[in-house]
Amino acid sequence: MELWYTEYTNKSSGLTIKIERQLEHRETEFQTIDIFKTHYYGNLMVIDGVVMLTEFDEFVYHESLVHVPMQFLQNPKNVLIIGGGDGGTAREVLKYGSIEEVVMVEIDREVCEVSKKYFPNLSVSFKDKRLKLIYDDGAKYVKDTGKKFDLIIIDSTDPVGPGEVLFTEEFYRNCSNILKDFGILTAQTESPFDREYRDPIKRIYRNLRKSFKNVNMYLGHIPTYPFGTWSFAFASNSVNPVSDNLKNSELPEGLKYYNRELGKSAFILPNFVRDLINE
Amino acid sequence: MELWYTEYTNKSSGLTIKIERQLEHRETEFQTIDIFKTHYYGNLMVIDGVVMLTEFDEFVYHESLVHVPMQFLQNPKNVLIIGGGDGGTAREVLKYGSIEEVVMVEIDREVCEVSKKYFPNLSVSFKDKRLKLIYDDGAKYVKDTGKKFDLIIIDSTDPVGPGEVLFTEEFYRNCSNILKDFGILTAQTESPFDREYRDPIKRIYRNLRKSFKNVNMYLGHIPTYPFGTWSFAFASNSVNPVSDNLKNSELPEGLKYYNRELGKSAFILPNFVRDLINE
Repeated sequence: MELWYTEYTNKSSGLTIKIERQLEHRETEFQTIDIFKTHYYGNLMVIDGVVMLTEFDEFVYHESLVHVPMQFLQNPKNVLIIGGGDGGTAREVLKYGSIEEVVMVEIDREVCEVSKKYFPNLSVSFKDKRLKLIYDDGAKYVKDTGKKFDLIIIDSTDPVGPGEVLFTEEFYRNCSNILKDFGILTAQTESPFDREYRDPIKRIYRNLRKSFKNVNMYLGHIPTYPFGTWSFAFASNSVNPVSDNLKNSELPEGLKYYNRELGKSAFILPNFVRDLINE
Repeated sequence: MELWYTEYTNKSSGLTIKIERQLEHRETEFQTIDIFKTHYYGNLMVIDGVVMLTEFDEFVYHESLVHVPMQFLQNPKNVLIIGGGDGGTAREVLKYGSIEEVVMVEIDREVCEVSKKYFPNLSVSFKDKRLKLIYDDGAKYVKDTGKKFDLIIIDSTDPVGPGEVLFTEEFYRNCSNILKDFGILTAQTESPFDREYRDPIKRIYRNLRKSFKNVNMYLGHIPTYPFGTWSFAFASNSVNPVSDNLKNSELPEGLKYYNRELGKSAFILPNFVRDLINE
């Protein structure tokens, strides 16, 4: 038997992956979760028909989302993760000894449950006592919390469906309000090669600029995501990632993707990408 | 009717592309060439079942292969292209006013013919009087020619089948011998994410180091190539692309991918890639 899973990037192309077997199918209160064992990419998590992560290349996504901002912070103590239920983002944050507390607000408890079962290398972070896991709506949390953070990481699904609220002007304003003076926000912001996301990406960056003084895009390269090139937003009211030096005296060992030169150069964009967000 | 073309990257995954119609199928003396009209990517050229280029993203490949080395050359006059029958590499080289002659050695005349017919934006270079097109074996040409070049660009197929000879120790030695003192060689060298190419990539870089003093890898990001991340070799006996400044006073206008900062930062590699070629 040959079993193939195809994620259609758009109506006209897709990534097709050979499946050894389906490990789980869940229809939760919020979304559909499928877990597959693949031949090439290790275990694969699919949410609402979209590849969320594979064991093969999750390190690029998580190291990009976390270490790029973490290296611009001096002695960061408190981090907020919105989404990130698989645990991979928390895993990278918790590699720093300076971290005292990570608050993770995940709307769907079942994402954490399947990660514990099928992605031990990601959900290892759930065992760390510095992690405070809250099952709630991230948009509501940032509006209501009285806490302040060094870093807010938006590790969300796409800006359609349940994730949409995490890309709005109001959400970003609430995030800006709970950042410390030298705080940073990062967020996944889709592929700049994707024609269908050009307008959404422009809107995201326009929305961010209403609440943050400095808004930059940086890139990471993730084979199992559409078009292979992924963008991340870096927003701050004080840190400028292009002109400022890195400030963190700690750098975790054993990273597979991130190094300090790469973390600075990730902000140097191809012409068509620069034009996209500067229009 | 729905017609889909799938390139299997390996036995367990592939890129699938919706086809409007097949424009041409040729079995030449050297290989099989298929041209498709696609819905999303414009026209697509497939050689021996492998995506060579699409109108959608060929600019990344060609601008990377050409402008990265061209910007390290002062007043470059003579360029040799091995392969490159579609004309895209020559098109980028010929954008420089300093160029007096481009010698292009393509083994398969029919690649040029189909490009003239279906890829006018690439084959436009064939009309330039500075282009000298030779239909011959590139390995033989570099062994026998008495000419010297500022830049040699290896725009080849994969290191299996007819392209294999363009990745050998002997071929690189012959290239080194026909470079001017401040000359540079660049070559496409597959995706560093591809497990099946890890050993071939190591071998390519080992072979290059036997004939060139400085050998570096740089990256470009091409959605329709396997894994979306592509590597290029930069080899020279005098230029060091990491420590040297750019030297070309000319930079063509209207580039969609390349800019000078990007051309320097393309040499900053993720940890796992750096480890791959330094083992």
